Amino acid sequence: MTGLIRQLARYATATTLAEIPATVQREGVRAFHNWLGCALGGAQELPVLTALAAISEQQMPPQATILGHDLRVDLQNAALLNCMSANLTAFDDTHLASVTHPTCAVAAAMLALSERHKTTGADFLLALILGIEIECRIANVLTTPPARSNVGLYMTSLVGGIGAAIGCGRLLELTEDQMLHAIGIAASMSSGFREAHPTMSLGFVPGHAARSGLFAAQLAAKGFTNSETSLEGAKGFAHVYADPPNLEAGTAGLGTDFEILRNAYKPYPCGIVIHPQIDACLEIAATPGFDPHAIERVELTVNPLTLTLCDRPDPRDSMQAAVSLYHWTACALLHRRAGLDEGTNAMVRDPDISALRRRIKPIPDATLDRAEAKAAIHMKDGTRLTAHVAQCRGSLARPMTEAELQQKFIAQVSRNQPAAKAETLAALGWNLPALADVGAAIRAALI
Amino acid sequence: MTGLIRQLARYATATTLAEIPATVQREGVRAFHNWLGCALGGAQELPVLTALAAISEQQMPPQATILGHDLRVDLQNAALLNCMSANLTAFDDTHLASVTHPTCAVAAAMLALSERHKTTGADFLLALILGIEIECRIANVLTTPPARSNVGLYMTSLVGGIGAAIGCGRLLELTEDQMLHAIGIAASMSSGFREAHPTMSLGFVPGHAARSGLFAAQLAAKGFTNSETSLEGAKGFAHVYADPPNLEAGTAGLGTDFEILRNAYKPYPCGIVIHPQIDACLEIAATPGFDPHAIERVELTVNPLTLTLCDRPDPRDSMQAAVSLYHWTACALLHRRAGLDEGTNAMVRDPDISALRRRIKPIPDATLDRAEAKAAIHMKDGTRLTAHVAQCRGSLARPMTEAELQQKFIAQVSRNQPAAKAETLAALGWNLPALADVGAAIRAALI
Repeated sequence: MTGLIRQLARYATATTLAEIPATVQREGVRAFHNWLGCALGGAQELPVLTALAAISEQQMPPQATILGHDLRVDLQNAALLNCMSANLTAFDDTHLASVTHPTCAVAAAMLALSERHKTTGADFLLALILGIEIECRIANVLTTPPARSNVGLYMTSLVGGIGAAIGCGRLLELTEDQMLHAIGIAASMSSGFREAHPTMSLGFVPGHAARSGLFAAQLAAKGFTNSETSLEGAKGFAHVYADPPNLEAGTAGLGTDFEILRNAYKPYPCGIVIHPQIDACLEIAATPGFDPHAIERVELTVNPLTLTLCDRPDPRDSMQAAVSLYHWTACALLHRRAGLDEGTNAMVRDPDISALRRRIKPIPDATLDRAEAKAAIHMKDGTRLTAHVAQCRGSLARPMTEAELQQKFIAQVSRNQPAAKAETLAALGWNLPALADVGAAIRAALI
Repeated sequence: MTGLIRQLARYATATTLAEIPATVQREGVRAFHNWLGCALGGAQELPVLTALAAISEQQMPPQATILGHDLRVDLQNAALLNCMSANLTAFDDTHLASVTHPTCAVAAAMLALSERHKTTGADFLLALILGIEIECRIANVLTTPPARSNVGLYMTSLVGGIGAAIGCGRLLELTEDQMLHAIGIAASMSSGFREAHPTMSLGFVPGHAARSGLFAAQLAAKGFTNSETSLEGAKGFAHVYADPPNLEAGTAGLGTDFEILRNAYKPYPCGIVIHPQIDACLEIAATPGFDPHAIERVELTVNPLTLTLCDRPDPRDSMQAAVSLYHWTACALLHRRAGLDEGTNAMVRDPDISALRRRIKPIPDATLDRAEAKAAIHMKDGTRLTAHVAQCRGSLARPMTEAELQQKFIAQVSRNQPAAKAETLAALGWNLPALADVGAAIRAALI
């Protein structure tokens, strides 16, 4: 029987755009558009500026664009920074089953490469879809029951480099054997754990995966080798990162059943497991006459994963707040909003928000879906307001519309760019399949 | 109580050379000398040339020397290549308790950095010792009972980047807080599994750790952050890579009990768990009148770890042979040698060697020490020759002398360099503590 990595390498190499259903292609465009907005929107955040200071000192050749900056660096560092920008505001897309943010590393590595290897939008789209599809499948190998993996592992960085290697490998026209080795080389560089989440390293680790995946493809193109059983072998990726892994999940339905259709786009810039509670609180906050200053206490019934990932009652800065259930529900109640402005350091340190955070009590309940939440707000006057969100905004049952994605793009990009340029860039994102030269088009739009 | 990463960062930052015992300092010099010989000796191997082809295409600035090549690249790629060269012939040093090759990533990253940051030999030696000491302690956290970690994990690459970050962090004069973050950033980039061992990626993955560790120090110097509990936190390095970890092993005896004194230098360029069997076979092969062509079969009694790591009966190339118990013992019996010439592709494919490999039968025996082996050779005439090696050459009980290390250095470096230059470089290695500018001295000696 053909092994996992061989089957995936073959699929990654042999598939044509004509074999990708139209709905899947459209989802690829949505993923690219959403990623581009996030990358431009996050470009001026402190972690990016700090990493850029370290990279600038290295005097790299000006080969690829840093989105949102009037600077170019070498391909690998451009991949790193553009992935990091897109991921660090916790606003990028999520493969819900594995809690992986799949597009950031793949798109960032490919965009950098496309500035040196002229790439049509159609080729870019196909490679992006293949990279996302296969990295999500590898995340499923580690997480789909009966697979068990350590909750501390950060899936986005563990599989992101593999996705980036596949996307870049397609642009470099790797053979099947080379693609197999690119996947293995990238897997050998896979890293990352959640302990570093509420720090500058949140977006850095996927960024590192992006540059590593690009490098893996570049190495494989020159004949560099890894094992032919890197993913499934007894001492390989799957067995090291899961006990047991679910190897079948890697190939079940390959080519007909697409993981990218299970990819969701966030309406709020924070951990996705917080979103149902935000919706419930926004719903209550919209009650006529609701006074958030009269709240006695807030009970939030949540899927247990929400607490595993986001149980941070007293965040100290915006990075910690991104994974704080308490912070975002407090903002939803007090400000009736949960956008980028609610994630700033100033907001995190706001005394009213801090006080309200302390009144929030989450209750885990395994009968709730991950997209579900219940809120019960006890007011000081003894009244009680409740809400039940069965499926949150942005979930697969209630996907973000293209109008909402456009609005999200403009809101993010307008933070750093003139409004007209934000519109141009958003249009370019939607127009991906028709572009003659992706790297050149993005460069031109940024001038 | 002060956490693990904080204690290690404090020790890494505050320790002076005067606090390092003379025996430990001498071991640091031996580690550097051995590393330099290995890096120069491995520089023309195919994996290095292949990686170099991929890197050269990226047109990096000529900032740091690639040992054994008349070329310079950026610091991080120089670190990668010089680590890879030193590690890929399986000839570098080994921290026996954790089966980690501790010097390759630390020394390679530091040498690259020392070409831009003028560094005295004394400062280099101290930083090298601290990097090695702490990375070995972190390997102990994952491997010292009751710690249990997956046998597929490659310790050298998992902890090498942390050692490199510490060594480079000292050269960059990081504060304690910066050092803590450098360790965490490096840990977030830790990667690697043994499935890739008998491929070009064997040395690449530690090389990747070297460049990642250097980058971690550069980032931390600019204020980039990771978690303050990256090593010991519930979702951090130790718990992700071991279940359970042994956190106490990280700090027990810190500053008085030195892991570098448990570091061994190899007499043979192959997996260290094969060495006792090589010694036993060399002993028998030295029997007067011994005819290797009259061997009926070979029984080797070995510590079980030897088979866990090196049970590869039919290697196809030099990379697979490096972890083949069968190949090296066959060479020892047939050629009465086990040096670099016995590891070539030609030797691996030699029909006489192949035939003899098939006559070798290993028998695991948990009562044997890792440095111990028994050989029983049944000759076609019915006679039986036996040997028992209680402690192999290069073990802690029978350490390589400095004359042996010198001989090893010259044998390796003479493959690529004129004999006089090999002598100069070896002398420079021994002279490390007295060098005024390490990077400049190495550069000058290579011209």
